[in-house]
Amino acid sequence: MKKHNFSAGPCILPQEVLKQASEAILNFNNDDLSLIEISHRSPAFVKVMENARSLVLELLNIENKGYSVLFLQGGASLEFLMTPYNFLKTNGKAAYLDTGTWSSKSIKEAKLLGNIEIVASSKDKNYNYIPKDYHIPTDADYFHCTSNNTIFGTQMKSFPKTDSLLVCDMSSDIFSRQLDFSQFDLIYAGAQKNMGPAGATLVVVKEAALGKTGRIIPSMLDYQVHISKDSMFNTPSVFAVYVSMLTLQWLKNLGGVAAIEKINNAKAELLYGEIDSNPLFQGVTEKEDRSYMNVTFTLTNESLKDKFDMMWKGTGINGLGGHRSVGGYRASMYNALPLESVQVLVDVMRKLNN
Amino acid sequence: MKKHNFSAGPCILPQEVLKQASEAILNFNNDDLSLIEISHRSPAFVKVMENARSLVLELLNIENKGYSVLFLQGGASLEFLMTPYNFLKTNGKAAYLDTGTWSSKSIKEAKLLGNIEIVASSKDKNYNYIPKDYHIPTDADYFHCTSNNTIFGTQMKSFPKTDSLLVCDMSSDIFSRQLDFSQFDLIYAGAQKNMGPAGATLVVVKEAALGKTGRIIPSMLDYQVHISKDSMFNTPSVFAVYVSMLTLQWLKNLGGVAAIEKINNAKAELLYGEIDSNPLFQGVTEKEDRSYMNVTFTLTNESLKDKFDMMWKGTGINGLGGHRSVGGYRASMYNALPLESVQVLVDVMRKLNN
Repeated sequence: MKKHNFSAGPCILPQEVLKQASEAILNFNNDDLSLIEISHRSPAFVKVMENARSLVLELLNIENKGYSVLFLQGGASLEFLMTPYNFLKTNGKAAYLDTGTWSSKSIKEAKLLGNIEIVASSKDKNYNYIPKDYHIPTDADYFHCTSNNTIFGTQMKSFPKTDSLLVCDMSSDIFSRQLDFSQFDLIYAGAQKNMGPAGATLVVVKEAALGKTGRIIPSMLDYQVHISKDSMFNTPSVFAVYVSMLTLQWLKNLGGVAAIEKINNAKAELLYGEIDSNPLFQGVTEKEDRSYMNVTFTLTNESLKDKFDMMWKGTGINGLGGHRSVGGYRASMYNALPLESVQVLVDVMRKLNN
Repeated sequence: MKKHNFSAGPCILPQEVLKQASEAILNFNNDDLSLIEISHRSPAFVKVMENARSLVLELLNIENKGYSVLFLQGGASLEFLMTPYNFLKTNGKAAYLDTGTWSSKSIKEAKLLGNIEIVASSKDKNYNYIPKDYHIPTDADYFHCTSNNTIFGTQMKSFPKTDSLLVCDMSSDIFSRQLDFSQFDLIYAGAQKNMGPAGATLVVVKEAALGKTGRIIPSMLDYQVHISKDSMFNTPSVFAVYVSMLTLQWLKNLGGVAAIEKINNAKAELLYGEIDSNPLFQGVTEKEDRSYMNVTFTLTNESLKDKFDMMWKGTGINGLGGHRSVGGYRASMYNALPLESVQVLVDVMRKLNN
């Protein structure tokens, strides 16, 4: 049966990417060797790495603007530590917006290195909205936010103007919508949503923002070290970088971020439209802050749960269970999820109402 | 043409493992989903992780001895930092043996956290031997060594008895030979030699040795945090863990470490035998310290270089070039390299002498 993969991450990837990746495991580049048994310093893999790095700048429309692209390891969780190491001055201060589990975790790690001010939090309502009225202290070295909150289903629609450096964890919505990416000094993202398999972390950093903290930074946590080695300071996660490159190429061929944004908007409108018009369902978050990647919703009548679960499972839908901190359902609709899969889900929701 | 892959790492993996990995990218577990698009918290992947962790203990013969196994990210390079974070007391001291590039790098990172004493170094002879007469200070929190030096081609044949904790970077020879692994408090290894593709780091740590430094450790660098989450504190490098599990299973089916050690010995004896008996070649390292994983050698007559290079390349041999810090040739003979490939190399060396 064809699966409709709404998994929150690691998540659906384009079928043609999976096919190419599978082939490369057996024979990469027609060289009778597997992708995963060649040196990362071989010309064939160096080309993959360089191609992936270029595609990121091209797709985010920030070429020739002083950004470096890195493919590191450790996920966003390690970036929670690398951010203050690279941007927080030894006696400095950083400002954080708390919009969910991942924000909270980033705050926890940053606090180990200095003075962290939480400018606003939506914890009071189980993170079902994005705080808007807050003040970023003028002496903050940087402001950190999470663009999309995978667990709770909220998404920042705009970003504050600030004189501080602007840092954003875009793990779960990078490459999904057009933004002025040049407003950010640091963007990071675990690969396993819109880019590739788990095991690589994308870092896009403005070089001019680095080297100003006065800290001695361990080599593996120092963006300047990784930049100086073209993202090959140590052996990179070869397979994850390769599949990321394939996915970025797929996105480019599709028409880039502008093209996928239209598709993502259509998917979100279809599903949120159903949630708003079908009396058996309700959304979890404030409407203006709804995520276009992770749609959280509940049944208005819990007694229908078993029936609904049986129905959607019967259509080949996968990964619709809500996170334990929210309950209900979560439909993750990353770039590679086709509109057709959302239609299957909406059809089930309509049928439940018949 | 069939390749004979002597690459130093990432390196050759068993053909049957590559085949299974390639299939799992398209359809994992007969579930019509790719391995890399399912949740790492799905029962199918949790089983992979648990299986991989168990196989490590079983193959190293250290079951029920208080060890935890973790599959982390960041390679041995991040372990260079995690080791002192987890084992070096705030005002403590650690002892390091300097046997090559990777030892030196581990020393550099550890120095950021405290007092590091280099008990001996073979740098005076470009690391072509393993120092033997050295004293580990009785007040050292731990002693750190590198079991096999990939670049220079030396390998420790025994390990010092010490009251300090014993830490070993086994990136390039773990699972290749029988040792009393229970003498170590921490073993770590990048996956990309004898275990799997780049992107995962194996950590085997004695739990009783942890939590004694008085340090506040960032979450991602804290072994206890990872242990408490069964190696799933954050999204693991799913594909690299899966392929590692397949390779460990392959090794177990083959008869385990004892069985592969016999094959590795046969490969090493064949190649070193030729180096010692063929007047056109000479070994780079002291005989008693020769690595059975990475064989470094040079031509006695440099004018034969072009001829020799053409000859081995003509047989499908790959990755025989020496590291720039040593020159000459390096034949890496990891577990998955068949004896047959070594025979092909030895035949070329003999032909050069005809």
